[in-house]
Formats: sequence, C-alpha cells, structure tokens
Amino acid sequence: MEGEPTLRLRIFNLNCWAIRYLSKRRQQRVRLIGDTLRQEGFDLVLLQEVWSEQDYDELKVKLAGSYPFSHYFRSGVIGSGLCVFSRFPILDTFLYQYSLNGYPYMLQHGDWFCGKSVGSRAGVRAPLLSLSLQLHAEYCRDKDAYLPHRLVQAWELAQFIRHTSKAADVVLLGGDLNMHPEDVGIRLLRGWTGLQDAFADAMHFEGCKNGCTLVPDNCFTDKSELLSFPLGIRIDYILYKAISSFTVKCEELKTTTGRAPGTDIPFSDHEAVMATLHIQRQGQPAGATLGTADPALADVVTEARAEVGAGLRAARRQRYSSGRMAVLALLLLLLQAAAALATLAGLGAEQPFPKLSFCLLAFLALGVLVLATGLHLFHTMEVKMLHGTEDQMWMVLRALQERP
Amino acid sequence: MEGEPTLRLRIFNLNCWAIRYLSKRRQQRVRLIGDTLRQEGFDLVLLQEVWSEQDYDELKVKLAGSYPFSHYFRSGVIGSGLCVFSRFPILDTFLYQYSLNGYPYMLQHGDWFCGKSVGSRAGVRAPLLSLSLQLHAEYCRDKDAYLPHRLVQAWELAQFIRHTSKAADVVLLGGDLNMHPEDVGIRLLRGWTGLQDAFADAMHFEGCKNGCTLVPDNCFTDKSELLSFPLGIRIDYILYKAISSFTVKCEELKTTTGRAPGTDIPFSDHEAVMATLHIQRQGQPAGATLGTADPALADVVTEARAEVGAGLRAARRQRYSSGRMAVLALLLLLLQAAAALATLAGLGAEQPFPKLSFCLLAFLALGVLVLATGLHLFHTMEVKMLHGTEDQMWMVLRALQERP
Repeated sequence: MEGEPTLRLRIFNLNCWAIRYLSKRRQQRVRLIGDTLRQEGFDLVLLQEVWSEQDYDELKVKLAGSYPFSHYFRSGVIGSGLCVFSRFPILDTFLYQYSLNGYPYMLQHGDWFCGKSVGSRAGVRAPLLSLSLQLHAEYCRDKDAYLPHRLVQAWELAQFIRHTSKAADVVLLGGDLNMHPEDVGIRLLRGWTGLQDAFADAMHFEGCKNGCTLVPDNCFTDKSELLSFPLGIRIDYILYKAISSFTVKCEELKTTTGRAPGTDIPFSDHEAVMATLHIQRQGQPAGATLGTADPALADVVTEARAEVGAGLRAARRQRYSSGRMAVLALLLLLLQAAAALATLAGLGAEQPFPKLSFCLLAFLALGVLVLATGLHLFHTMEVKMLHGTEDQMWMVLRALQERP
Repeated sequence: MEGEPTLRLRIFNLNCWAIRYLSKRRQQRVRLIGDTLRQEGFDLVLLQEVWSEQDYDELKVKLAGSYPFSHYFRSGVIGSGLCVFSRFPILDTFLYQYSLNGYPYMLQHGDWFCGKSVGSRAGVRAPLLSLSLQLHAEYCRDKDAYLPHRLVQAWELAQFIRHTSKAADVVLLGGDLNMHPEDVGIRLLRGWTGLQDAFADAMHFEGCKNGCTLVPDNCFTDKSELLSFPLGIRIDYILYKAISSFTVKCEELKTTTGRAPGTDIPFSDHEAVMATLHIQRQGQPAGATLGTADPALADVVTEARAEVGAGLRAARRQRYSSGRMAVLALLLLLLQAAAALATLAGLGAEQPFPKLSFCLLAFLALGVLVLATGLHLFHTMEVKMLHGTEDQMWMVLRALQERP
C-alpha cells in the first residue's frame, strides 16, 4: 500500500449451504452466486460450505476473469468447505484445523467429518491477512453440548490470529461463527484479538434488521432454529483490525434480505454479508494493538474457562464410563472363554452346549469392546485438548492480572 | 533485549524416551535428567517423549528453583510428549497438530496415538519464538511408507514457522526431526524457513562424531536402526535464525557421548544436544530473511512435491481398495438377508437352515464392513491433506519461479 493513501476494499462473505444431494436447488444457487459475484466485482470473496470441489471448479471457471486468484482448502473426510476468490494475488495459504470438532459418532451433526478449520491467506497487494472460517454448529441453544468445543475453537482461532497476524497490516475475518454477537465465544475472540465488528462500526447499514443472517424471510432457513428468535439471528460476521500504521473503517455494510438481488430465490439459507472498508495509512504506527488490556477481558476469559472446565468434567465422565464399558465387555469375553475351555475339557458334557447363543453373545461382547475402546480413546483426546486449553487460558489470565 | 548488546543463551535439547512400562530404567533416567538440568542451569530446556505427566510433574518440582517457567503440551490420546522449561517467563503457548501423522491401525508404530505436534512458546525477555517438536518416526529407511507424512509435517512446520515468527526477534527450534541432515524434509524445512543448523555453524564442537545423536556407544539404542550406519546418525537438531535486527551465532555445540556426564548410564536412547548461542543486536534490520530465494529451493520443493504426489497416489489406491472391500461386505450382508428372508418365506424348508455358520458369516461381514468403512474414511482424509499440501507446494513453486 506504499504511496497509496487510501484503499477501498469490497468484501463478500457467504455460507453457501452447498451440500450435494441435500441442499435444495443447489446448482441453481451456485450459478446465481457465481453470476452475482462476476457482475458485482468485489475485491475479496470468502465462501463457506462449498462442500463439493465440483461446485468450486464451476465457480473458478466462471470467475476467472474478475477474480483471477482463488484457493480451495481441503481437509477432513468431506472437506473444509472453505474457499476464497480474490482480485489480488494470493501469496500464501495456511490451514489450521481445530483440535476439537464434535464427535464422530454424532452422524446427524456432520461437523466432525468436515474437519472444521480456518483457512488463512496472505496477499492483496499489501500484507493483508484474511481468514475464512466456520465454527462448530449450535444444534440446541438451551442444552448446548458443543459449547466447550466451540469455545476451544474460538480460543484456538484467537490464538491463531494473534500468532500469525503480526506481519500483516490488516486482518480480515469473514465467516459463519455459529454464535450470537453477545455469546461468550464472540466476546472471547474479539476481546483477545482486538477485532472490530463491521456491523457495529459501519457508518451506513442496509439489510436485515440488527444485521441478522438467519432470517424468517429466507425460504430455505430452518424455521425451528428461529423459534426463540422470531426476528432472526446474526451468526455470520465480517471482523477486521488494523495492525501496524493503518486505520480501517467500515464505510458500508449490507446484507441480503431473504432473497438474492434481482431474483426470487436466496443465495443460501444464510444471508450474504458485504462490507466496504476504507484502509488508510496513518503517520505513526498505532502501537501495540494486539490484545486489548481491557479489564473486562479477564472476566470473559474467566467465563470461557469455566465453560471449558465444565466440558472437561463432562468429557472425563464420558471417558470413565466408556472405559468401564470396555472393561465389562472384556470380562464377559474372558468368562465366555473360560466356559468354552471348560466345555472342551469335558465338564458339563451331559448338557448340550448352546453354540448359537454363545456365538451371538461373543460377537456382541466383541462389538461392545471395540466400540467402547474407540470411544475411550476419543474422549481421552478430548480431555487432553480441553485440559490444554484450560491451561492456556489460565496462563493468559495470570499474565492479564500481572499487567499494571 | 533493548539496551543489552549481547545475550548468551544456553539451550538443552533431548528426546527423553520416557514411555511408562516400556522404556528401560525410566525413573532413574528422569531423575538423572532432572539433577543434571538443575546443576547445569541452562536458559532453555526443550524435551521430547516425556509421555507421562507424572514425569513432567516430578521434573517441574525438581526444577522449580532454576527454571521457574515451564509448560507441558497436551494432545492426542497419549499426549504430545513435549515440554519446555525456561529461566525466563513464557508469555504465551500455542500447539499446532500436524494434519497427518501415521495410521491409527499401525499399533506397533504408535505415532498416530501421540498426536505429534509442534509446541511453540514465545517469551524469554525479548520476543523469542522457540519450538519444541518431534516428527513422525522412520521405521524402515529403504521402504519408508511414512515419508509423505513426514514431508507433510516438515512442510506444515515450515509454514507454521513462516506464519508465526514474524513478530519474533529470534526463532529457535529443538527437536527430534527423525530425518538425516541431507534428507529432503530437512532441506525443505531449512530452505523454506532459512533456519540455520547449530551443528554446521558451531565455532566449537564437542561430542559424538558428525554430531550423531543415535550412536552405537549408547546402551539403550536399538542396534538394528544403525545397521546401515555403523557410526551413528544425526536426527536431533537445534536450528535457529534471526528475524529482525539481530544476529545469532552458535558459539559452542555439544552432544553427550553414549552416557550422561559423571555416570555410567545415558540420559536416553538419544544423545542430548546442547548449544550456546550468542544473540546480538545489529545496527540495521537484516531485511527480509524469510524464505531464501535460493534457486536450489525450487528444486527441493519440486522433489518434496514429487514424494507427496507418490504418497497421494498410494493413499488413493488404499482409499479405493478399502471402499471396494466395504462394498463387497455390504453385498454379502444383503445376500445373507435375502437368503434369510427366503427361508422365512418357507423356500427351501426341506433342508435344515445352518444357523450357526449363518450367524458367524453375518458377523464377519459386519465386522469387515465397519472396518473397511473406517479405513475408507481415514484414507479419504489422508488424500485430502496430501492433495492440499501438493497444492500449497505448487503455489509456492509458481511464486518462486515468478520471482526475478
């Protein structure tokens, strides 16, 4: 950005909900998204839930003229679903996979299989770190079993930003954070990184009320998610911050309003978020902007740490009960082996040996043993990661308290 | 380091081989390591393979006086085994888990269960980024099935260092890289990050010939690993680089020589590596030191990319064959279900139905189905990660070739 006093950057962010065979009118919507992006000519497009590489390839071909640089982040069984299109060169990419991301056995909640991650790219003429990401979904707000996992992800995301952003001039984050603006995870992320919310800071706003991105007017939105929030919820964000001698201002923020401009169907079950940012070089470096030393930050970290601690206790209980189940199955197998040996040795030969039920029981015990051992290993990893995060948070809390 | 012209930093690095129940004379060796570290008073101690938290706690208590700051990195089922002791405050920690780390079903090669990772800590008075790590073990040099995984790890490690080191003055890396100095993974790591090898640059060296860290004189070393290398091999390293306006020089490098100083048993099956570094402030910033634009770098990345490509093809074959196995098992189950239904419908009632063998076969088919599906999912993830790494390497190669 040398010699250029102001850069105006237009950003487009959308959770595309493009799951093959499952998402309604997927191909039509992907075409529509591609057409709109080509016409509008943004500078940077951050997309989530583009689960099929075929859809990405289609978009890439269509957008080659206006967005010559793009990247698709591969991870997990299905993929990360994250991709980026840019008018400016992408110099480098980096994918960080969260250490915890739901449970493989919760098949109906597919998060584990997606390898949720944060894709980071550096480039756009000046050192600009932009991140595209999606955090673990919230399936039930009242009894949210995934809150500790989402908090670990928010924490790892914040740590990732703190550790990778230092050479950047500006950090940009667009994604489906699956958290309401006042949730502890968002407060943790924003407090610990100093990221600003484009919606809160926009000089001009146009779109759904309160910047909501899951709204009842969208025909694809699952209405059961909005039962407690009839006006909609805001879970898709564009966040930003200036690092070195720059200032960033959000000139304008827009969301779609239940349908794509000029048509009658929406882009996705989420609304798109579009921001126009003004990036300006300041005379003097802004100084240490990493980590707001705000006294409220210690409270947020304490609150998040308590939630992670609750998750840790739950994971320890699950580890214990799956371990106990494995031991019981093993005991049953040993008992059966003893019975079989006794029969072979000629004991109880006067009674017929119940071969079929013996085999059924043995296979059942073996199945339970394998499953319970797998669960035990998985919950052991979960305990390690939650414990590690709790430790890191404690270290940060101690440092915050020692600061003058 | 403001106002201080030179800092002399003494570093100790050791793969401790402290596996409960498996490693020989573990407790005695951990006590010995603790006593030596307390007497010697290093500035920074990087340990690997401290698998039991109990051993870490014992060391922590013993070293509390001379190394008031420490951290244990938790990950995977067993743990990362990584820990750090420091005379200077640890300001922040960050754990990065490699996306690929062996196969869960290779139980005899325990890498997958350890959650191999790189633990990074920032601190030591000045912004110093120090890393402690271990890469995937090499089990058979001639037919090294894990080479692509180790290359992905070396690449991710290099990317991690490039992305997180920019705010540091000095980067220090100590660990068991499980690679010989001339291996492609080491050349990739060093070429792409600009890290210098303390052994190659040391003004004074004392220890095993060629800096070897697996030597025949060590009574715990597995002699079969040294069949092709009777003089020993060097796989434990201390690497470093200066980032901003600093210079780093290695004044002295030492290794133990098959036994710990003053006793008759070694610390571990690996030799310890001890470096004395001189860190000095320069008048002027050294400029862009990230990524040596060396033309040889493109060759190294090309070579590594070819190996990753070979791994990708092997992973695709395994994904295909496990998928085919799952389909066959499913077909067998369906056939059995059809046979059972036919019998229930009264067909073939003149012959007795072979219940026992029917059950056995059904359970076998079910077992194969579950196993093959699991393998298929695992190899799908492997393909994604290898493909993603190949892509990243390609992007870097393009950028290297476009550079003047």
